[in-house]
Amino acid sequence: MSGPTITYSALPEIPLIKRGDDLVKVITAGIDRAGINLRTGDIIAVAQKIVSKAQGRFIDLNDVEPSPRAIEIARRTKKDPRFVEVILSESEEVLREREGILIVVHRHGFVMANAGVDHSNVAGDEDRLLLLPEDPDGTCADIKAALDNKFGVDIGVLINDSFGRAWRNGVVGVALGAAGVPSLRDMVGEPDLFGRPMRVTQVAVADELSAGASLLMGQGAEGLPVVHIRGFKRSGKTCVAASLIRPKHLDLFR
Amino acid sequence: MSGPTITYSALPEIPLIKRGDDLVKVITAGIDRAGINLRTGDIIAVAQKIVSKAQGRFIDLNDVEPSPRAIEIARRTKKDPRFVEVILSESEEVLREREGILIVVHRHGFVMANAGVDHSNVAGDEDRLLLLPEDPDGTCADIKAALDNKFGVDIGVLINDSFGRAWRNGVVGVALGAAGVPSLRDMVGEPDLFGRPMRVTQVAVADELSAGASLLMGQGAEGLPVVHIRGFKRSGKTCVAASLIRPKHLDLFR
Repeated sequence: MSGPTITYSALPEIPLIKRGDDLVKVITAGIDRAGINLRTGDIIAVAQKIVSKAQGRFIDLNDVEPSPRAIEIARRTKKDPRFVEVILSESEEVLREREGILIVVHRHGFVMANAGVDHSNVAGDEDRLLLLPEDPDGTCADIKAALDNKFGVDIGVLINDSFGRAWRNGVVGVALGAAGVPSLRDMVGEPDLFGRPMRVTQVAVADELSAGASLLMGQGAEGLPVVHIRGFKRSGKTCVAASLIRPKHLDLFR
Repeated sequence: MSGPTITYSALPEIPLIKRGDDLVKVITAGIDRAGINLRTGDIIAVAQKIVSKAQGRFIDLNDVEPSPRAIEIARRTKKDPRFVEVILSESEEVLREREGILIVVHRHGFVMANAGVDHSNVAGDEDRLLLLPEDPDGTCADIKAALDNKFGVDIGVLINDSFGRAWRNGVVGVALGAAGVPSLRDMVGEPDLFGRPMRVTQVAVADELSAGASLLMGQGAEGLPVVHIRGFKRSGKTCVAASLIRPKHLDLFR
């Protein structure tokens, strides 16, 4: 007798993604290659990097003119002033700086290091940077609509990234975008094992799914940027990943 | 052609756990009931609550005499002074307080709400509290040694809990304890897709595994406190979950 099961499967042989690539086609081909019969309730997690690449979110450091503020922060953090300029242009607020570290509030609301600006894994020279996707929740909704339509199903779609955290070492997968997923599941009032109403608990379901997908994506030397998730019982209302961002006035650690 | 896969399966029909119960026997019976042939590399995730219950980490609020400091904090946070006294006795430091909220550094080093002191899901009256387990890494090592020996394998064992976070809404699964798992996997120097050395990245593998397990544990109305994980490729050195705690002098958000 087996119990409830959730399975994360990386789609094999996803090609390197370039600006303008159609991710729906890439994901569909991956699903076909894996022999998966997509079903209602399944979830597709897509790595932030391939979404950013498909959207052409590249910046060449040589095109960047650092502002006086970027030069000053770069001096204190010992970073490239042009890199700092790009981070600032992606950010609403700088929360912390220390040598090698810059924690900001991204324009999308995420509190994260370097505004998610990255230079790993981008083809070409060291001077090429990759920014976060534009409108990750909207992109998830678009991908979900296209896949729902193509396969005649009602699935979930996530864009996941890896974030550092306060208080704990190491990065973990989190959801940048979501569609068709109860991203923040409200457990208020559901009875506990003994039938008493539970106190307020919200579960960051989209982040837990993203962590599971992220772990598998990190398991391949050659990169596994799309993961198919099956067995998660969708309950509660679906909501976008933006609902996972704590409003500033309720945040005790800003 | 299927890609790499990680599967999380809840062990069915785990009984309610009482003080003094032998968790190794409970887990073994669950593995047998599920028809799982435990293999080297598999991981067993155990919910904090059943570890605490088996260890008898109960406190009766009626036995608690609140200190003047607990009474003062209780007044400001609008909590029961006896509940605050228990939290303080489990804590090294109070980081933040606000009405209904008390964020502390637990004696084990975890930054968390209410020092993990809980009154949900404990049989009996509302006045019975449950504390975090003693020595979660040591308990994982003990469970691993017993299961390794019983099944002739080399597995991983986790104790997971759900923590709130700075900046993001909702709780997510994290590892309180670990054995036989590369809890914090060091990606420093591993080449990226284009062969350049990656910059320093540490992945909180035990937290990602715990998030995956936690999601499944939360899927059952009747509680699914033990999850079997298969397919995770163990690489890198194993280390305890305590390695996930960022030292205070390196923490920008304390």
